[in-house]
Amino acid sequence: MATTYDIAYDLEKQIRESDEYEQLKQAYQTVNEHDEAKKLFDEFRQLQLDLQQKQMSGEAISEEEAKNAETSFQNIQQHKEITDLMSAEQRMSLLINDLNQIITKPLQELYGTLGEENK
Amino acid sequence: MATTYDIAYDLEKQIRESDEYEQLKQAYQTVNEHDEAKKLFDEFRQLQLDLQQKQMSGEAISEEEAKNAETSFQNIQQHKEITDLMSAEQRMSLLINDLNQIITKPLQELYGTLGEENK
Ligand SMILES: [Ca+2]
Ligand SMILES: [Ca+2]
Repeated sequence: MATTYDIAYDLEKQIRESDEYEQLKQAYQTVNEHDEAKKLFDEFRQLQLDLQQKQMSGEAISEEEAKNAETSFQNIQQHKEITDLMSAEQRMSLLINDLNQIITKPLQELYGTLGEENK
Repeated sequence: MATTYDIAYDLEKQIRESDEYEQLKQAYQTVNEHDEAKKLFDEFRQLQLDLQQKQMSGEAISEEEAKNAETSFQNIQQHKEITDLMSAEQRMSLLINDLNQIITKPLQELYGTLGEENK
């Protein structure tokens, strides 16, 4: 009989062979092959990370930082390699979210029921 | 042929039938049947949530709040129903983390490789 882990490995294999993953991998390779796009994309990701960390630590984001992020976002959108990659990331993320929702349903039920009881 | 979603539903079924889930469910029911334990546990969880939210928004945690959380934690540890529940939650959490690591390995590989290229 298949164990929980066996099934998780099956699922991993399916994800690896999914259109979503194949397209994401391809889109990343394409960006990596275009030096200017890659540079802009890396800068954009770093800016995003920096702003997220500031927000999480409760630090204020300056007007200049917000403007830099906006400019960086406008720049990357000029590159089809990058917009393709971002679309592929979004499709992959939708798949993973769907799968997570299915898998964690037993836990949601358990905690949901408890939440109701507290009302 | 089984689709990605079919396999995710299989995995959900396995999790629902796992010892970890059965024990967690049982431990929750036991806490729910003991009014004093349930009240203390709900208060502890609420205190935890409040402190987490403060930390995430960068707000300072007062000495009184830290002391309340400590006292609440000491109180709940006097109740076997609650320590059993917390152990069951930890075992469930270890299983879910294991499964997540397996399932998201393709993504970790993709992002990991990219990280290396940036060095
Ligand atoms: Ca290149
Ligand atoms: Ca009761």
